[in-house]
Amino acid sequence: MSLPNSENASTLENAMQLMIQTFHKYSGNEGDKYTLSRAELKEMLTTELGNYLGNAQDKEAVDKVMGDLDSNNDGEVDFTEFIILVGALTVACNDFFLEYNDKQEKKK
Amino acid sequence: MSLPNSENASTLENAMQLMIQTFHKYSGNEGDKYTLSRAELKEMLTTELGNYLGNAQDKEAVDKVMGDLDSNNDGEVDFTEFIILVGALTVACNDFFLEYNDKQEKKK
Repeated sequence: MSLPNSENASTLENAMQLMIQTFHKYSGNEGDKYTLSRAELKEMLTTELGNYLGNAQDKEAVDKVMGDLDSNNDGEVDFTEFIILVGALTVACNDFFLEYNDKQEKKK
Repeated sequence: MSLPNSENASTLENAMQLMIQTFHKYSGNEGDKYTLSRAELKEMLTTELGNYLGNAQDKEAVDKVMGDLDSNNDGEVDFTEFIILVGALTVACNDFFLEYNDKQEKKK
């Protein structure tokens, strides 16, 4: 998948393009090339979010994320469902970093 | 704002960190340092999303985005509201790129 005009992109536009590229890197492996199957979701979680989600090799964990995300119950995660996951994780990270920074400042 | 452990980050983790950094780059300028005021929102829209949103200098456009995003009507955009904006724009971009790629493929 190639994206047009990424040379003059801002930081935020780069972030948006990285999310789009990440999804399509995994969604194209099997079946519908615009959705993540259970196997593609597992590969994406393990490779991209290992630091955040821990042991995503765990079949139960993958099933739980798939169950939470797959709002239309078709066994596939589409791009909108993927963005909801990434958004929720980013909000959680931001909360974590703010707490972390508060603690660092208190140490000074 | 400094983020811990960004050296071994995956592509998706980088995207998440870029979104967090972008928000705090603007939110810290005035008032509550963890929310975007109207002026901070305008600067963020103009600098970061100029290519996508066009003429965000337009006061009406900024007011409209603020009105749409500020779900609790406090005149400030918090991090969760910011992520909802970025998520919605990313889904729109993805749709655009898929259409663009389909057209490129049909040309071949």
